[in-house]
Amino acid sequence: MGLSEKRHPDSARAAHRRQQVLEAAEGCFGRSGFHGASMADISKAAGMSAGHIYNYFDSKEAIIAAFVQQNVERVSALMQDFDRSDDPLQALLDGTDRHVSEVFGTLAWKMPLEIYAEASRNPKIAALLQQADAQTRSQFLCVLRRARERRGLATGDAFRSRVEVLISMFQGLQLRVLHHPGQDQAPLAAALRMAAAPLLFAE
Amino acid sequence: MGLSEKRHPDSARAAHRRQQVLEAAEGCFGRSGFHGASMADISKAAGMSAGHIYNYFDSKEAIIAAFVQQNVERVSALMQDFDRSDDPLQALLDGTDRHVSEVFGTLAWKMPLEIYAEASRNPKIAALLQQADAQTRSQFLCVLRRARERRGLATGDAFRSRVEVLISMFQGLQLRVLHHPGQDQAPLAAALRMAAAPLLFAE
Repeated sequence: MGLSEKRHPDSARAAHRRQQVLEAAEGCFGRSGFHGASMADISKAAGMSAGHIYNYFDSKEAIIAAFVQQNVERVSALMQDFDRSDDPLQALLDGTDRHVSEVFGTLAWKMPLEIYAEASRNPKIAALLQQADAQTRSQFLCVLRRARERRGLATGDAFRSRVEVLISMFQGLQLRVLHHPGQDQAPLAAALRMAAAPLLFAE
Repeated sequence: MGLSEKRHPDSARAAHRRQQVLEAAEGCFGRSGFHGASMADISKAAGMSAGHIYNYFDSKEAIIAAFVQQNVERVSALMQDFDRSDDPLQALLDGTDRHVSEVFGTLAWKMPLEIYAEASRNPKIAALLQQADAQTRSQFLCVLRRARERRGLATGDAFRSRVEVLISMFQGLQLRVLHHPGQDQAPLAAALRMAAAPLLFAE
């Protein structure tokens, strides 16, 4: 399919070069937006001759696809950590402070906003995002259901929507840091726990 | 200042024309993005000769400013409705179904995503969004504090962060409709109430 990444023979070097392209793209998209940045700009920012970039990515869409995939893998690793803990529900609550400080302390929220805007007008990117979200959501649901079962709590259909609200609340932080960047993080994390607790623990 | 709207002598007709420009801009930004759409494109889509648009708006930034201002006014009217109700906290919970169906049943979430992406790279737009958010937030806080006082509940500093989480959860829905558009709305609204209740009612 058009969004697939190309395979390169020397895989360690290729992985390194691909990562360079992704970092360059993040800078270019951040400055000029998805439409304002060309493959030539990204290539140049990555220190490659124009055209060389096509050895790694077919198109800007393929670069976005790689970002989305990286995020799926990042979140998946996080879920596995929760799953391995003694009490995943409590571990999730306990992780709130760290999560808030990651969102408010870095610029990691910028690239997702660019991807969301592009997805709102590009059905291929929207489909990509929806597939990735379905994957992450089902993993999250699976980890939380297992944890609730251990406590003898219901894990039926209504629980799906609770997970959706958890995601909405945490994904919404990417918008809050844009709208209200300087706010106090500790009481914000405490309020998040207050809202998340019934979603996780209530019958 | 550069983002201010121009005044036009015949105000009713001017207001109508301004609204036409905003609707045209929403279509153009939705198709081509903020950077891809030119003032000439927007002018054409609004059925104006190129250049005529400058009687109403100085720039694309001024158009975005008008959208942001319209949203402030829309949310402000909503807050006033809550404030006038017998029980604003309960009215807010009761409004969840309507809110979810508005987000999931229209394309009103598209333009904000475009504005957020532009704000992430354009400090003027970010400042605009932050000012608008501060205004909306302080009105929301004021309405909720008054309602909590009537119930004898605390309204101290920590309550600010609870309001922030309420906003995060509801603003996050703009991202959820993009990621997971076809989901069941009634259980989603129920889960939102479950998370919002402690934020609103807990001591």
